[in-house]
Parts: sequence; structure tokens; C-alpha cells
Amino acid sequence: MNKSILLSATVTVLIAVFYFFASMRVGVLRGRLGVKAPATAGHPQFDRAYRVQLNTLEQLGIILPLLWIATFFPTPFGWLPALIALIWLAARVVYMAGYMADPDKRLAGAGLSGLSCLALLATAVTGLVMAWTSAPA
Amino acid sequence: MNKSILLSATVTVLIAVFYFFASMRVGVLRGRLGVKAPATAGHPQFDRAYRVQLNTLEQLGIILPLLWIATFFPTPFGWLPALIALIWLAARVVYMAGYMADPDKRLAGAGLSGLSCLALLATAVTGLVMAWTSAPA
Amino acid sequence: MNKSILLSATVTVLIAVFYFFASMRVGVLRGRLGVKAPATAGHPQFDRAYRVQLNTLEQLGIILPLLWIATFFPTPFGWLPALIALIWLAARVVYMAGYMADPDKRLAGAGLSGLSCLALLATAVTGLVMAWTSAPA
Repeated sequence: MNKSILLSATVTVLIAVFYFFASMRVGVLRGRLGVKAPATAGHPQFDRAYRVQLNTLEQLGIILPLLWIATFFPTPFGWLPALIALIWLAARVVYMAGYMADPDKRLAGAGLSGLSCLALLATAVTGLVMAWTSAPA
Repeated sequence: MNKSILLSATVTVLIAVFYFFASMRVGVLRGRLGVKAPATAGHPQFDRAYRVQLNTLEQLGIILPLLWIATFFPTPFGWLPALIALIWLAARVVYMAGYMADPDKRLAGAGLSGLSCLALLATAVTGLVMAWTSAPA
Repeated sequence: MNKSILLSATVTVLIAVFYFFASMRVGVLRGRLGVKAPATAGHPQFDRAYRVQLNTLEQLGIILPLLWIATFFPTPFGWLPALIALIWLAARVVYMAGYMADPDKRLAGAGLSGLSCLALLATAVTGLVMAWTSAPA
């Protein structure tokens, strides 16, 4: 088993754990704060927690595909995709902590998340270009 | 082709079919009940159907990555990830039926969905730990 | 490296680029139009841009899994999954342009997106059936 695949798989599971926690929190706050389903807004704390979860899901749709493309089409730095995804995950923890305290404090974590997406995109594109140029015609 | 990969692929397609149906329903109800885009709320039946779809998407972000990590880093029970994902899918059908009848009846399906996520997480972590401990240094 | 895998990976990255652009636009409009977080509605232009992003995410949950199942369980037309996903991406660009101009103009792009999902589903199912019937018992 390739080591960089193992690294990317481990970070993927860590991301799933974080996202599971963010989702559970929404369910718990829904009960505690009396936000009745199917509403997805109704109390400031709930609203923030739900946005943290949904915004994380919005980024999962880009982070996970790029992580795995970059892992399977590696540059010479095979560990790089897993490292960037780990930085993204750390940025999400900062984002969550900031957002729950005050929506205006979400921006540092949001910015670092976005930059991590771009870095992972650059890595994936580099790996793909290398694969295309080395592929037999 | 490994049999457990084929099983996980089949369950993935079944999940896609269910999710496609849940999404189509939202579009149909939007037209029938006159909920004009870009609104995502406006009629109780529509609101429930949309939450069923979106909550399913929220869980796809965790179920599919864990299913495939668990499949590619197998425990001795290679068929287990596909089985858990199938139970998750059954829980989603129960969730949808309950939610459409009455939002308070969503909880049984939601609980079983959450437990399936945890079971898949435990399976993926077990497989990863086995892969790390058997990986050459 | 199999050529159809390289094609599907390339389309996946193109999809990620489009989705990243759709997401960035929401963030930019949030600032420009003064839609304060955690609200996800508040100005017609913002509301449309957010629905474009979220509806695209809703479909990513079905398009990406089916694209990769169809790629790894190929029919004799190995390039077909990447081509359908590319058509889906083009439909999304049409959808975005239409929706931003007028929500009622989203339907052409939405319809073609949905048909692409169905075509990818049919391709994935065909590939899976071929794999099952050729798998040793």
C-alpha cells in the first residue's frame, strides 16, 4: 500500500470525524433551543452551528475530490495533498470556533479554508498535467 | 475485480438512485405547490421533502467517503462496509417516509442513519489501523 | 495509467473549478450586497447565486460517485462517463447564466443537468451489470 494513499485516507477519516461532530452539534442544538424541524433557522446559536456544518459540506464537495485526484496523480511530493487537507481541516476548526463566538470572526478560518482549496487545486492540476504529458499517445 | 469493491459500488449506485428520487420529488413538489425559485421553503410538504433531500446530502458527505475508505482498507469482513451502507440506505427510506408524514416521526430513521455512520466510521478506522500497523516503515 | 481514468480525473477537476467559482461568487455577493452571515437569503442576486451553488452541490453528490463508478466499471465505451460529466458541466454553466438572469430561465440548464445524471446512472448500471456477470462465483 502506497504511503501517500494511507496518509490521504487518514486525513479523510479525520475530516469525517470533524464533520460528524459539526452535524451532531446541530441536532443537539435543535433540541435544546427548540428549533422545530423542518426549520433550519430560529435561534442565533443554532443558525451559526448550521452554517458551520453546511459551509463545511459545501467545501467537502471540492476538498475530497481534489484530495483524491491529487493523491492518485502525484507530484514528486506525494505527502503534499494529505498535508494541505490537514491544514484545511485545522482552518475549519478555527472557522467553527470563530463563527460560534461571532459570525464576523469566521473570516480568518474561512480565508485559510479557501486558500487550502486553491493549493489543493494547484497540486491536483500539476499531477494531472504530469500524467497527461507522460501518458502514451 | 474484488467482490467487496463490487458490493460497495452496487450500494453506491442504489444510494444515488434513492437520492435522485428524493431530489426529483423536491422539483415536482416545487411546481405543484407553487414554491417559486429561489425560495427553498413555502409549503409544509415541500419543506419536508427539501429537508429530506438536503439532510440526505449532508450525510452523503460522510457515508460515501467512509464507505470507500473502509472498502479499500478492509478488515477481515470485506462485505461489512457495503452492508452498513445498505442499512444506512434503509434507514433513509424510513426517515423519508416518517418525515413526510410528520416531522416528529423522522427521529427513528434519523437515529438509525446516525448509528450507521458511526458503525462505518469504526469499520474504516479499524481498517486504517490495520493498514498502518502492517505498512513497511 | 488508463486513459479513461485520466479523462474522468480531468473533468472532475474542471467541475471543481466551476464549483469553486460559483462558491466564491456567493462570498463576494454576500459582502457587496450586505447579506450578513449567518443569513443565506436577503437580496435577489445573492439568493440566486446561492441557489446556483447549493443546487450544484446537491448534484455533485450524485454526479461524482456515478462518474467514478462508471469509470472503474467501464462499458466498451471507456470515455463515455467523462463525456457525460462534461455535458453535465456545460449544462451547469447554462443553468448558472439562466438563473442569474431570471429564476424562470434556469429550467433548460436544470433539465439537461438532470438528463446527464440519468445518462451517467445508466452507464454506471451497465458497467456494474457487466462486472457482476463476468465476476467469478
